[in-house]
Amino acid sequence: MDLTALFQLSYGVYVVGTAADGRRNGCMANSLMQVTNQPPGLAVGLNKDSLTCELLGQAGRFSVSVLGERADPALIGTFGFCSGRDCDKFAEVNWEERDGLPILPQCCAYALCDVRQALDLGTHWLFYGEVTDCDHLTAGTPMTYAYYHRVIKGAPLPKG
Amino acid sequence: MDLTALFQLSYGVYVVGTAADGRRNGCMANSLMQVTNQPPGLAVGLNKDSLTCELLGQAGRFSVSVLGERADPALIGTFGFCSGRDCDKFAEVNWEERDGLPILPQCCAYALCDVRQALDLGTHWLFYGEVTDCDHLTAGTPMTYAYYHRVIKGAPLPKG
Repeated sequence: MDLTALFQLSYGVYVVGTAADGRRNGCMANSLMQVTNQPPGLAVGLNKDSLTCELLGQAGRFSVSVLGERADPALIGTFGFCSGRDCDKFAEVNWEERDGLPILPQCCAYALCDVRQALDLGTHWLFYGEVTDCDHLTAGTPMTYAYYHRVIKGAPLPKG
Repeated sequence: MDLTALFQLSYGVYVVGTAADGRRNGCMANSLMQVTNQPPGLAVGLNKDSLTCELLGQAGRFSVSVLGERADPALIGTFGFCSGRDCDKFAEVNWEERDGLPILPQCCAYALCDVRQALDLGTHWLFYGEVTDCDHLTAGTPMTYAYYHRVIKGAPLPKG
């Protein structure tokens, strides 16, 4: 078994945001996909250690911002490699509120989801959310996780 | 709400295979991702109407073959747009058996999974499987779903 074979799976690069009890936070994620069309629903995997995962569990809602290839590397640094326990990540970027959730207007698109079900996967929660709103934002090509590694030359994102 | 915004999410292109009761089948899927590292685990969404979904539920196991950009379009036709209820898809392609599951050696990589948990999402099942084996196959660039639409100019895959 060569686990590097799993590097051949493809992903996008996203900022998953949430807000609960007057706090907001977000983190980079690549483990995110649409599963259903009727109703439209997304699944996202998040590490239980992350503040985003903790807040999302409380809020029962999350936002997704789809990063483009021209995303500011500083944005990736803030959301991928800082902890919301140490800083207010959204204080460092241009963001907007949609229906109480934070999104990043410089991204390609956004979606808002209400959590309907969740699976406890030990180290991670897998949340399934119904899309309550989504729209295009700035034009551009969505960033793939392969592009992130090849061009941005970023470190591996913390899984979920 | 503009649901075409969800087209900006990124995916790979896979054949998910399974075998139960002496029958084998497989289908194209793009809603597949790694969620956990410890143990390595994949989540895949499949439409309940598909024979693959039905057999996978019986088998409790599945294989994933990661399609490359140079995948034979006939393979996509067979696995994406035929039903295993009408034909034996694997009779039409070069395949191999690994630990009782069918894989496609002309793909970039494969993984075998044992289902550990599942979510009933109405039209779809979302299966979470622990990876029991995986390895690289033929060298090549994994196909993204965007590449499939742009270059192969294929019709949308049936969701899951």
